[in-house]
Amino acid sequence: MGTKITGIAASSGVAIAKAFILQNPDFTIEKRTITNTQEESDRFQNAVNQSKGELQEIKEKAQRELGEDKAAIFAAHLLVLEDPEFIGAVNTKIMDESVNAEAALDEVASGFINIFETMDNEYMKERAADIRDVTKRIMSHLLGLSFASPASINEEVVVIADDLTPSDTAQLNKQFVKGFVTNMGGRTSHSAIMSRSLEIPAVVGTKNITEQVESDVVIIVDGLDGDVIINPTAEELETYEKKQREFAEQKAEWQQLVTEATKTADGQHVELGANIGNPEDLEGVLANGAEAIGLYRTEFLYMGRDQMPTEDEQFEAYKKVLEAMGDKPVVIRTLDIGGDKELPYLDMPEELNPFLGFRAIRLCLERQDIFRVQLRALLRASVFGNLKIMFPMVATLDELRQAKAILFEEKDKLLAEGVSVSDSIEVGMMVEIPSTAVIADRFAKEVDFFSIGTNDLIQYTLAADRMNERVSYLYQPYHPAILRLVHTVIQAAHNEGKWVGMCGEMAGDHIAIPILLGLGLDEFSMSASSILPARSQLKGLSAENAKQLAAEVLNFDTADDVEAYVNKQFNK
Amino acid sequence: MGTKITGIAASSGVAIAKAFILQNPDFTIEKRTITNTQEESDRFQNAVNQSKGELQEIKEKAQRELGEDKAAIFAAHLLVLEDPEFIGAVNTKIMDESVNAEAALDEVASGFINIFETMDNEYMKERAADIRDVTKRIMSHLLGLSFASPASINEEVVVIADDLTPSDTAQLNKQFVKGFVTNMGGRTSHSAIMSRSLEIPAVVGTKNITEQVESDVVIIVDGLDGDVIINPTAEELETYEKKQREFAEQKAEWQQLVTEATKTADGQHVELGANIGNPEDLEGVLANGAEAIGLYRTEFLYMGRDQMPTEDEQFEAYKKVLEAMGDKPVVIRTLDIGGDKELPYLDMPEELNPFLGFRAIRLCLERQDIFRVQLRALLRASVFGNLKIMFPMVATLDELRQAKAILFEEKDKLLAEGVSVSDSIEVGMMVEIPSTAVIADRFAKEVDFFSIGTNDLIQYTLAADRMNERVSYLYQPYHPAILRLVHTVIQAAHNEGKWVGMCGEMAGDHIAIPILLGLGLDEFSMSASSILPARSQLKGLSAENAKQLAAEVLNFDTADDVEAYVNKQFNK
Repeated sequence: MGTKITGIAASSGVAIAKAFILQNPDFTIEKRTITNTQEESDRFQNAVNQSKGELQEIKEKAQRELGEDKAAIFAAHLLVLEDPEFIGAVNTKIMDESVNAEAALDEVASGFINIFETMDNEYMKERAADIRDVTKRIMSHLLGLSFASPASINEEVVVIADDLTPSDTAQLNKQFVKGFVTNMGGRTSHSAIMSRSLEIPAVVGTKNITEQVESDVVIIVDGLDGDVIINPTAEELETYEKKQREFAEQKAEWQQLVTEATKTADGQHVELGANIGNPEDLEGVLANGAEAIGLYRTEFLYMGRDQMPTEDEQFEAYKKVLEAMGDKPVVIRTLDIGGDKELPYLDMPEELNPFLGFRAIRLCLERQDIFRVQLRALLRASVFGNLKIMFPMVATLDELRQAKAILFEEKDKLLAEGVSVSDSIEVGMMVEIPSTAVIADRFAKEVDFFSIGTNDLIQYTLAADRMNERVSYLYQPYHPAILRLVHTVIQAAHNEGKWVGMCGEMAGDHIAIPILLGLGLDEFSMSASSILPARSQLKGLSAENAKQLAAEVLNFDTADDVEAYVNKQFNK
Repeated sequence: MGTKITGIAASSGVAIAKAFILQNPDFTIEKRTITNTQEESDRFQNAVNQSKGELQEIKEKAQRELGEDKAAIFAAHLLVLEDPEFIGAVNTKIMDESVNAEAALDEVASGFINIFETMDNEYMKERAADIRDVTKRIMSHLLGLSFASPASINEEVVVIADDLTPSDTAQLNKQFVKGFVTNMGGRTSHSAIMSRSLEIPAVVGTKNITEQVESDVVIIVDGLDGDVIINPTAEELETYEKKQREFAEQKAEWQQLVTEATKTADGQHVELGANIGNPEDLEGVLANGAEAIGLYRTEFLYMGRDQMPTEDEQFEAYKKVLEAMGDKPVVIRTLDIGGDKELPYLDMPEELNPFLGFRAIRLCLERQDIFRVQLRALLRASVFGNLKIMFPMVATLDELRQAKAILFEEKDKLLAEGVSVSDSIEVGMMVEIPSTAVIADRFAKEVDFFSIGTNDLIQYTLAADRMNERVSYLYQPYHPAILRLVHTVIQAAHNEGKWVGMCGEMAGDHIAIPILLGLGLDEFSMSASSILPARSQLKGLSAENAKQLAAEVLNFDTADDVEAYVNKQFNK
C-alpha cells in the first residue's frame, strides 16, 4: 500500500504523475541598522524595479496562455508595486528607523498581510496572497536568491509545495502539471480557486506533504475526496485510473447540462444561480449555465481604490451585469462593508469583535450619503434587466423598514427627475442573523424574497468565528439548529407566497443539497463552477424523497449524525 | 419649567439638592526625553508611595463607615500599587525608553485599561476603573496637582461629575451627598454599582451634564426614570417630593419581603436567585432574601493571580458558598475563561473576534488538566450543600456529552478513592448560544436543567457586540426573536420535566419579568439588590394574565412594540 495522506479537496479530478517539489528559497532575514539610508532606499527601489520587469513578462505570458481575466492578477501585483501606501511605507521605515530594506519590507508586508488575512472575505484574502507574492519576489531580489520557477517544468508532474502563490499557479504549464498538493490553504484559498479555474486536480491543507514526499516518486492526487497516495501499488494505480476515467465521463455528462433547466427526477424545478463579485465574473456564469445571479457582492466596487465609486461608475457596472443576464434574475446586494472589511477612505474605528460590529446595513443607515448613491445607481440600472435588490445584515424590522423607505424615497426622486425606473424591482433581504431567521414570519410580510447567507448565519448561530482555527470545527452547516432555522425561514416565506434563495457556501454542498431541496428552497446560488455538478445531482434526486429526508434530519442530535445519514441514503 | 436631561437610571430613588460640581484636575501631559532615568524612576516611586499612604487612610475610613466589603476596593487599589506587572512596566518604560514618568505611566495604564475595558464582564471592567483611579492618584502627585475631594463636602448636595471613580464614590459622605449625576457610564459601570449599594439615587450616561449645570443651582435626580431636572419650578419640586415620599414607602414595603417566598398574586411560586462572583458576595445574597444562588461565576477564582488555583483552594471556596446557603440551591458554573477574558498564566493567542472564539467549555474540553481539577473540587464540595453544576457556552450535543463524561469519570475516581460525593448533584448547562436554544428539545433529554444566559444569547442572536457603542442599540432583550427563543427553551425543558432558570440581566428587568413569568420561567437569577423589587413586582402580577401577555408579545414585530405594550398593560 502506498502512503495515504488526507487534505482538503480543492479541485475535482484525479491526477497520477511523478512528484515535483517546488521549494521557496530561505527568506530568513536579519534586522540591521543602516547608516546610509538613501543608499538602502535605492537598493530597495532597484529590487522593486526588477520585480516589475519580471511581472510584466509573466503577465504577458499569462495573457497569451490563460486569457485576459487570469492575467488580471498580475496587473494587481504591478499595482501593489506602485502602491504608495505599501512601497512608500517601506521607504519611510528605511529612512526614519534606519533599518535595512529586508527588515523594513518584511515588517510592512506582515502588517498588511495580517489585516487582509483576517478578513472574512475571499477577495480580501486574495489581496493578502498578492502582497505575500509580491513581497517574496522583491525579497528574492534584495537577497540575491532565485525563485524556483514552475515554468521550468517540462515533463508530466504533480507539483508539491508548501503553498502556491498566484504567480506560481499562473506559471504552471497545464500540459505538464497534472495536479498539485500543498501543505497550506483551504477550499477558498487563492491556489484552490486557481486550481479549479485551471481544472487541475488539487488537494490543499495537507499540513506536511512536503515532508512526506521525495522528488520523482509516483503520486496520486484525488481532488474529489481530498486524498493523496504516495508510491501507489499496482492495484491502487488501477483503482485510481478507473476513477479518473469515470470522472472524465462525468464531466462530459455535466457539460451537456449547460443549457438545461434544473429539474429533479420527479420533475420539480429549482433555480441554480451564481455568486459574483465583479462584472468580469460574467463569463464563468454564462459558461456554466447559471439560471440567475443569486448574489452580486457590490463591495468589490468600493475596494482597492482611494475614493467612493461615483453613481455613474456604479450604474455602469450594474447595467453591464443586468444586460448580460437578459431577463434572468440578478440579485444585487447593497454594500456589505465595515467591521472587518475596511475602506481606506472611510474612517472606521477599530472594533474588538468586528463580526459583531458596525457593518453592512448598520453602516448604510447611518451613512446615507453612501447608501443613497448606490440605491440611485441600482434604480437607474433597473430598466436594463431583471433586478432584485437585497439588504445585508438586517437584524430588526426597524432596519428593514428604514432601508426600504430610503429606497422608495430615491425612487420617487428619480421619477420626479424624469429618470425611468423599473416597476417590477423585487426588494428582499439576506437572512444571516439568527434573530431574523427566528422571526422570519414577521419579515416575510414586508419583503419580496429572502436569501439565506449561511456563512454568517452558521457563524452567529454557533457563536464561532469560522476564520478562527481553534473554533472552526464549530462551523457546522449540518447542525440541526441550522437546518431548523432554514426550515423556519422557508416555511415563513412560503406562507406569504414569497421565494427563498441561499447564497452561502452551503447551497453548493452535495450533502446539503438533498436536505435543502427537501426543505423547499427555491433558489440555490453558488460559485459558477459548482452549478453543473449541482444540476447533475439534482437531476438524480426525487423531491418527494428529499422532503422525507429533510423532515427526518430536523430531529437529529448532531451535525455528524446528519452527514452520516445523508451519506448512507445515497450509499456513499 | 426646569431643564430636563435624560440619562440612564443607575440607582433608584429621588434626590433634591444643590449641585456640587466635582472636577478632575487637568491631567494633560507631555512626553519628554529624560537623561537621568534613575532620578525619574525614583520620582515615580515617590508618587506611588504617597498614593499608598493616602489610599491606606481612605481604606480605613471606608472600613469604619461603609463596612469591610466596600473597603475591599481600596485593598484592590493598594494591590495595583504593588503589582509588578503594572508598576514594573512603568519603571521599565522609564529606564528603557528614557521617557518621563507621566508619559510612561499614561502609556502603561492606557494599555491595561484598554484590555480590561473591552472585556464582556463587569468584574474586569471594574479592574479597568481601578487602574484608572490609581493612575489618576499617582498622576496627581507626579504633576503636583491636588485631587478634588468629595470628602470635603459639608452640606446637602447632588454631585455632578464627568465620571466618578471608585475612590470618589467611597469618599462620598452619605449624610451630605443626596444623589449624583455623571456624563459617562451605564447601568453596570462601577459608579452605578456603587451608587446602588450606597443607596444614593443616581443618573449616569447623561453625556453632558457637566456642561449644563452650574454650581449651587437646585437639581432633581430621578434615579427611577433616569431624569435630571435643573432649576425646577415650584410645581416640579412638589411633584418630585411626592415621588420621593412614595419611593420611601415602597422601599419600606420591599424590606418586609426579605423572608417571604416569591409568589404571584394568584399564588404561583417562582424562585428568585442571586448571581455572585465571590464567596464575599454572600452577605448581600442573604440580606436580600435570595432563595438560591442561580449563578456562581467561578472565573474570578482564577483571575488576578499568577497561577491556577489549586483543587483545595477551589474546594474551600465552593464549600463556603454551599454551607452558607444551607439546603438552598447553588448553581456553580464551570470556568468561563478565554476569548476576551485572559489569564496571564494561560498562553492564549489573540483572536480577531474573541466573543466568537475559544472560550469556556471549548477551552475546558481541550485543557482537561484545568477542567478536571475544577470538577474534582466541585464534586468534593457537593456534600456540603445543594450543588448544581452548569457548563457554559455549549453549542453542540457533542460538547455536552464530553463534559458530562469527564465529570462522571472524575466522580467515579473520587468514589474509588473513598471520597464522598453527593448523589443528587444536578447537571445543567447555560443556554446562551442560539444553536442550543433552537434545538433545546434535543438537549433537554440530557440535562437536569437549563439556565438562559441572556447577555450572550442576545448578543449572538442579534449579531451585535453589546460592548461596541456603535451597535449597542441592537442589544434588544425584548426583540421578539429573543422572546421566542426563551419560549422554545422553556417549552422544551418542561416537556422533559426539567426546570429553566435565567441568569442574564434580563431576569431582573421589570419589563421582562411579566413576560418571563408568562413564558413559564422557573427561576430568575439577578444581582442581589434587584431581588426585593422583583419579589414585590411578582407579588402584584397574575401568572394567568402574564401567560396571556407572553403569548401576545411573541407575535409582535419589534422590541419597541413589546416594551410599549408591556408598559401600557401596567398603566405606566
